[in-house]
Amino acid sequence: MMNKQVLLAERPTGMLKESDFSIIEKNIHELQENEVLVKIEFISLDPAMRGWMNAGTTYIRGVEIGEVMRAFAAGTVLDSKHPDFKLGDTVTGTMGAQSHAVMQGKHLTKVDSNKVPLSWYVGILGMPGLTAYFGLLDKGLPKAGETVLVSGAAGMVGSVVGQIAKIKCCKVIGIAGGKDKCDTLLNEFGFDAAIDYKATENIGKAIKEAAPNGIDIYFDNVGGEILDAALLNLAMNARVVVCGAISQYNATEVKGIKNYMRLISARGTMTGIIVFDYFPRAAEAITDLSKWLIEGKIIYKEHLVEGLDGFASTLKMLFTGANTGKLIIKV
Amino acid sequence: MMNKQVLLAERPTGMLKESDFSIIEKNIHELQENEVLVKIEFISLDPAMRGWMNAGTTYIRGVEIGEVMRAFAAGTVLDSKHPDFKLGDTVTGTMGAQSHAVMQGKHLTKVDSNKVPLSWYVGILGMPGLTAYFGLLDKGLPKAGETVLVSGAAGMVGSVVGQIAKIKCCKVIGIAGGKDKCDTLLNEFGFDAAIDYKATENIGKAIKEAAPNGIDIYFDNVGGEILDAALLNLAMNARVVVCGAISQYNATEVKGIKNYMRLISARGTMTGIIVFDYFPRAAEAITDLSKWLIEGKIIYKEHLVEGLDGFASTLKMLFTGANTGKLIIKV
Repeated sequence: MMNKQVLLAERPTGMLKESDFSIIEKNIHELQENEVLVKIEFISLDPAMRGWMNAGTTYIRGVEIGEVMRAFAAGTVLDSKHPDFKLGDTVTGTMGAQSHAVMQGKHLTKVDSNKVPLSWYVGILGMPGLTAYFGLLDKGLPKAGETVLVSGAAGMVGSVVGQIAKIKCCKVIGIAGGKDKCDTLLNEFGFDAAIDYKATENIGKAIKEAAPNGIDIYFDNVGGEILDAALLNLAMNARVVVCGAISQYNATEVKGIKNYMRLISARGTMTGIIVFDYFPRAAEAITDLSKWLIEGKIIYKEHLVEGLDGFASTLKMLFTGANTGKLIIKV
Repeated sequence: MMNKQVLLAERPTGMLKESDFSIIEKNIHELQENEVLVKIEFISLDPAMRGWMNAGTTYIRGVEIGEVMRAFAAGTVLDSKHPDFKLGDTVTGTMGAQSHAVMQGKHLTKVDSNKVPLSWYVGILGMPGLTAYFGLLDKGLPKAGETVLVSGAAGMVGSVVGQIAKIKCCKVIGIAGGKDKCDTLLNEFGFDAAIDYKATENIGKAIKEAAPNGIDIYFDNVGGEILDAALLNLAMNARVVVCGAISQYNATEVKGIKNYMRLISARGTMTGIIVFDYFPRAAEAITDLSKWLIEGKIIYKEHLVEGLDGFASTLKMLFTGANTGKLIIKV
């Protein structure tokens, strides 16, 4: 049986491009003791992948040249030499951008795809859902009546952060690019206000108008100028949760933040969310999120793209804002 | 009786200059009920004053043009219409840069200058001492064996932070400008390592050499490039305590920090210290600091300049690094 794989071919400088990846087919080796063969069905595409393409180690080591591109995925067990897994089980794990994966059983998580679609486990019930859930609730510590600002608000993480903040009775302001996305925030996700950064000259002023008493929690997915504008508008004891810096991932010269001293005058804190730290507590998030999804309190959209070919173009959609909803490759 | 006053004459752009202040003499008015007349003896000069000269409100409103320059001071009561104060009492308060002050009694704090010199109350037992004490202990939360990095380490706040960190059994690395200051850190203040930023090309590399396992606490007095270099060297769960940004106070274009995402990979937090918040707990700090001073565990130096004339030049010494020890005007 052949395995189609997306390998990292070179490290990009600036925006990623097609030639950064090569696609090959390779024989699948005979299973060893404790190994499991998985047919991958859904591959999650996440902004963090851009960082994984760089050399060196930040919170996780960079993917090596010639190695299968790291990716979180969900699939079905085809064969198993591990006692906990059998043919037909549905599983998730960091299985890579490929059609099949041979995995150590201990690196797989069995998931129940009877009540919810399997694809949800790479999105709302997977890494980005957990990022939103723990980032907001465990790091942001929202209290009813507080004002929450979220950037990248139409994206997977941002839209869930905003909706959970609404469930927690906060006032929610979203920043997104374009009128359509802002309409979605207001009309579908139930945000209280939306700021279209592409149509707004002075983001800081727009935030101030939407939140005259300041921001209690800023959940940052974008970094750069929007983070700087948000810092200008912190309320006393504000919490800044840094989740990502998508505006900077493809930048050759990173833009520094100038207003961090506002964090001090506001007696605020800035901290980050690394979702891997919360994997041991995944069940908490999956229970709550599933309940909210089934009750219709969280609206979740997927943007499926078929096939591994054109992997770079598909991944690039995240950075140009071309996707509507969680971007997933259906293998 | 005449009162000599330093008034804010104009708001500086960039480095402050002599003409930003004017010096006048003014009659002292008759005391009203609850007012106290204080002969000011010692005026504290602090980096924060540069921020107070700007328009607008950050953690505190800017000084108005024509108003007496805000300053923390210590002095002796000459006359009192407040029941809690009498002739000869020694007091501290935000009394301004002037020779005499008429204050509401409730804005003054009586201090005991029998056991320690009165000048200590504008330095080691005043704002900067409390900043160091609560910034390190309450925000930085040092544990024995941890590594503490402090910038502006030869300055008033920095030198006390480092010495308290030593008392708490931490490894202490100081950053200062010039060989003399670095020698002082090592030989007088008992730091474990000193980095001369003026003689070091790559501060990040120098920090890494001094702290191969990373920095648990970074106490930042300077901001700018040194803060960026420190962020690159954070250990897991590091705490960044931002106290000041002296490198930026006179800058017309603020330098942004680029490496804040390292805070996230290190699961770190960044927070600030505003000493005013700790005034209700001042006694804790004064008790501990006095004890350590008397036991010789903290070495404290003052740099006294006589008279209010040349106020700007005296204040400027803080930003050029010309002072050795806590800068105080002796009126």
